[in-house]
Amino acid sequence: MPSLTATLLPATNGNPILSALRRLNPNRQLLSHKPMTVTVTANSNSANVYDRSYWISINDEIDAHLKQAIPIRPPLTVFEPMHHLTFDAQQTTAPALCIAACELVGGNRDQAMAAASALRLMHAAAFTHEHIILAGSRARIGHSFGPNIELLTGDGMIPFGLELLATSDDPTQNNSERILRVIIEITQAMGSQGMLDGQYNQVQYGQSDYIDHVCKKKEGRFYACAGAVGAILGGGTEEEIEKLRRYGLHVGLVQGVLSNWFERKEKGSMEKVLNELGNLALKELEGFDQGNVLAISSLVETNFSNA
Amino acid sequence: MPSLTATLLPATNGNPILSALRRLNPNRQLLSHKPMTVTVTANSNSANVYDRSYWISINDEIDAHLKQAIPIRPPLTVFEPMHHLTFDAQQTTAPALCIAACELVGGNRDQAMAAASALRLMHAAAFTHEHIILAGSRARIGHSFGPNIELLTGDGMIPFGLELLATSDDPTQNNSERILRVIIEITQAMGSQGMLDGQYNQVQYGQSDYIDHVCKKKEGRFYACAGAVGAILGGGTEEEIEKLRRYGLHVGLVQGVLSNWFERKEKGSMEKVLNELGNLALKELEGFDQGNVLAISSLVETNFSNA
Repeated sequence: MPSLTATLLPATNGNPILSALRRLNPNRQLLSHKPMTVTVTANSNSANVYDRSYWISINDEIDAHLKQAIPIRPPLTVFEPMHHLTFDAQQTTAPALCIAACELVGGNRDQAMAAASALRLMHAAAFTHEHIILAGSRARIGHSFGPNIELLTGDGMIPFGLELLATSDDPTQNNSERILRVIIEITQAMGSQGMLDGQYNQVQYGQSDYIDHVCKKKEGRFYACAGAVGAILGGGTEEEIEKLRRYGLHVGLVQGVLSNWFERKEKGSMEKVLNELGNLALKELEGFDQGNVLAISSLVETNFSNA
Repeated sequence: MPSLTATLLPATNGNPILSALRRLNPNRQLLSHKPMTVTVTANSNSANVYDRSYWISINDEIDAHLKQAIPIRPPLTVFEPMHHLTFDAQQTTAPALCIAACELVGGNRDQAMAAASALRLMHAAAFTHEHIILAGSRARIGHSFGPNIELLTGDGMIPFGLELLATSDDPTQNNSERILRVIIEITQAMGSQGMLDGQYNQVQYGQSDYIDHVCKKKEGRFYACAGAVGAILGGGTEEEIEKLRRYGLHVGLVQGVLSNWFERKEKGSMEKVLNELGNLALKELEGFDQGNVLAISSLVETNFSNA
């Protein structure tokens, strides 16, 4: 059988995939959550044709869902900062992964839209609060809200994300058990043993064992949650849920490494690490229908080659 | 029929009710959330005998539940601050009100224990973040954690509270719809149109229309939520839920007024305001079995008198 290898190169000029990813992540100059810049060795014969319209359409739908949920309306003191801090925050592809995972296990997009929106809000809240910690050191951000507003609005985004999710419960669908399970997944991923532990380690320990102490807790746990949550809402089996959780973990680690490697001037080969992570991610997609896997696997764009 | 009147006096020296309330709120020197110091005109013939052991037992059970949920265990960097910031925060009687409301509508204490614990955590998170804003001005707090730890640990307490609630779902009890409804209630009460709006107004506007702009959003909304949530989980009717929501609102307003009146040197009669609020609160308890109402009504201790 053909082996799966991922070639993940930081150089991306003129690459259509990166262009698409940039459209998904337009604010790449912000803080440490730089967008995923994964790309492929150009290969016009690749079996894996990247369908960028797939990711763009997902992100457009999440945007539309959130814009409807957070219109700029009175009281402006509340909704204007929340709107801006949500949409100005560094974007992440994790909410789109949540939708893609839902579709991969046979669910439809609507079933995961509230969860994807909640993930986007939770991430924006974490980003906003991280900016308070980093402000004055290396962070620049394109808004004029002071730290009190960042603090309080960020605090508001966390419960609001979970409220969106809880209100998506439809008694006629008999899906309240699934939604409660998703709330547990998200609260754990964002909480003191997930995102916050990573942020704490980042502030406290800085330089030591970055992948394990920071990337795994922040991007890794967040993307893992997105994959699992999408699969839960799409009606996946327990095996599928765990596979998509691990797929998300490795995609998140790729994201974390790409975001931090150059900034931290790590020694050693980033490409080697990314290749390993990419391979581990793709391995989790074995067993799914390979036709359906094309879209989601393009988050770790691959170059199939016969070994 | 006898009219209900509430006599709410700030003078409390030697009063056993205040002593009990102080045991419920031991940290009364902290920030603006001073404990409720409601008391009664002494009346040995009062039909309403205050059963302080009722509130003490409820608070002890919530404490025990939370201490089991947040033991001090590795990683200490995570759990030590969370433990301290939860138990050192200004306490509030709202979680106990949640349990009392549940019992009033015929539920048992266990049904509301996770929600009461979640309310306690959410309140501690709000208190912790409020301290970041107020630090350096008037606030003193008895711990040595810096603002970064306060920020991140507070952020962790919000999802953790909701996680506790979501994990309390018991499929055999068929109560997941109720728990989702409670999650919506709590996220709304803590969010941008509730507690956070009040905190924002407090920081931004300080002096203007304090009861409407601050107390109603902070203490009012929080206690209203506690009453409604207890009634939902105890299986109350919609009418009972709304009555206990309004009861909580007025109890919370009493709490807010007592916390802030002297500090703000308001003109006018605090007693008059408290009497009005107390009467409005007690009016909501009409229609419930008056035997069962004794315990919960002692949050606004009353002096029944025949008009």
